[in-house]
Amino acid sequence: MQPEKVVKSGFVVVLMDLKEIGEFGLIDLIQTDAIQDPGTVVVGIGDDAAVLLPTPRQLQLVTADMLVEGIHFDLGYTTAWQLGYKAIAVNLSDIAAMGGVPRHAVISLALPRQTPVEFVVNLYQGMKEICREFRVNIVGGDTVASPHGLIINVAVMGEVEPAQLVRRSGARVGDIVAVTGVLGSSAAGLDLLGLDNWAEYDFAWPLVTAHLTPRPQVKAGPLLGLHGATSMDDISDGLASEAHEIAKASKVGLRIDAARVPLAPELKQAAAMLGKDPLDYALYGGEDYQLVFTIGREKFQALSVIDFGVPLTVIGEVTEAAGSVKLVMDDGTEQELAPRGYNHFR
Amino acid sequence: MQPEKVVKSGFVVVLMDLKEIGEFGLIDLIQTDAIQDPGTVVVGIGDDAAVLLPTPRQLQLVTADMLVEGIHFDLGYTTAWQLGYKAIAVNLSDIAAMGGVPRHAVISLALPRQTPVEFVVNLYQGMKEICREFRVNIVGGDTVASPHGLIINVAVMGEVEPAQLVRRSGARVGDIVAVTGVLGSSAAGLDLLGLDNWAEYDFAWPLVTAHLTPRPQVKAGPLLGLHGATSMDDISDGLASEAHEIAKASKVGLRIDAARVPLAPELKQAAAMLGKDPLDYALYGGEDYQLVFTIGREKFQALSVIDFGVPLTVIGEVTEAAGSVKLVMDDGTEQELAPRGYNHFR
Repeated sequence: MQPEKVVKSGFVVVLMDLKEIGEFGLIDLIQTDAIQDPGTVVVGIGDDAAVLLPTPRQLQLVTADMLVEGIHFDLGYTTAWQLGYKAIAVNLSDIAAMGGVPRHAVISLALPRQTPVEFVVNLYQGMKEICREFRVNIVGGDTVASPHGLIINVAVMGEVEPAQLVRRSGARVGDIVAVTGVLGSSAAGLDLLGLDNWAEYDFAWPLVTAHLTPRPQVKAGPLLGLHGATSMDDISDGLASEAHEIAKASKVGLRIDAARVPLAPELKQAAAMLGKDPLDYALYGGEDYQLVFTIGREKFQALSVIDFGVPLTVIGEVTEAAGSVKLVMDDGTEQELAPRGYNHFR
Repeated sequence: MQPEKVVKSGFVVVLMDLKEIGEFGLIDLIQTDAIQDPGTVVVGIGDDAAVLLPTPRQLQLVTADMLVEGIHFDLGYTTAWQLGYKAIAVNLSDIAAMGGVPRHAVISLALPRQTPVEFVVNLYQGMKEICREFRVNIVGGDTVASPHGLIINVAVMGEVEPAQLVRRSGARVGDIVAVTGVLGSSAAGLDLLGLDNWAEYDFAWPLVTAHLTPRPQVKAGPLLGLHGATSMDDISDGLASEAHEIAKASKVGLRIDAARVPLAPELKQAAAMLGKDPLDYALYGGEDYQLVFTIGREKFQALSVIDFGVPLTVIGEVTEAAGSVKLVMDDGTEQELAPRGYNHFR
């Protein structure tokens, strides 16, 4: 049943255009610069399993995301490098949202037979770029043939001090609700990518970048865990959806001020051009990979002296209305915020 | 970019025929009986990442395998239950081959939209059956839509006492070479599955079973690590390929006696019927998920009092001829054993 595998090890090689560089060329390609923190890796790529040295007294975290061509990405608008970067980024974001630090990644690829070797090289270069930045080791995986389209699965392991672990379920009535960075840029960037002439707009670049190579809040997540965040989620499916996740898990309500949701000036320009409401992108767009969190008011005030590498913005507060998320409009009226995510966006 | 995701959490739900049971029905289905060893799981399915409690002073292991419909399996001959069982089994085998104990699994599925809910139920039941047997927790993953065919990625984390870790690279000249169980059954089983009438043959059942629901050597692997195995591999690509992996990594030679390679009597019957050499199945067939290991002679003799749950058979010895694997034929002649695996089998 493994007709396409020619080397069984941490990584397995696919017979295709990759013959150009040969099996061992590809393994060399994958192994080069794969380890960023050698003190934590006993055995990396090349045995039946990777062997890792955990940090004593930390909890272990694990998350996985599968990206399927034609569903999650379109090679018409993303390069291999960008795709590799993003495939890692979305997993680092999940680790950060627990208050944890990412340590190791395991990469599974199913590649169409006609995949050029250059594509695979560029995909790994994008992965390694973000792994280098955040000191994450690529320690193994699987590479197989695909009869239809590219599939990428990334599993990332991380660690967290027990006291810094942040779940979705810890929000308390009276906490403030805050977010990192700006919201909605990624979804607007995706809409722009659907236009042939997006590159002509000065405002497009930061939005398209937010979509294609999102920067996960790897620094802010653990710091927020250390300094008292009571609940946290990464914003993968839009603020509305994530706010509902916290409200449901914590059995509280959230009240969000529409006027306080942070939006990039470029998002407002793009929304005006596209005839969309910029706030809709922020609430329902998704793929921002920012963090939404709750924290006590006094604790939040103490955060002002800390460098999170990203601005924090208070957008609302935690209420007693269990499971409810209210949006307060500019005129003071409130409306229930539907938990819809990106899938219902258009 | 996540048009098919309706719930972002440890597991994400796909909109398709699964509407029958609803989103929360599917999450319930996945979560039910997912945790076999609750003392090691702080947070399972349902947050941004799973949170796990490692065993102090153990090394952490991780491995992943991606199975692609049309490449690694054919739904014409495997049921969903069997496929789920095997997707976990192949990963447990990799953990066992390091001398380790499997602890947690993370499951990513890409499902065609028309997938019946019953298929997903049965797939998880097969996974949970083997997880229950070996006390492995399903702690998270991702479920997305696929435009073409089913894709399964399983990542398994395990643990190993540092003194019990077995790499490929530790074989020493003078060690014996041994294997668990019998070899070749799985590949013969696959050939039988290609016949319409395989069920008519009494000998077919154990071979087809070896192919569809292989039993990984989860008990034997750690015991062999504890009792002095110097190198070990699981036999996923055939004995010839794995022997070469050990010879190369350990910088030794292996000499294997053809007559000592353990074959099931049913394999011999099937090979006679199929007009094949049963030894070819054992050497080049693959997917046996038995273990091949090296160990000092005295250490091996001491193993006779231990219950490994599977027979051990000495098949050869470690020599000085670095990187070479010789096959000793019945007439005493030797030939170099090519490192070909299953892909060149037919």
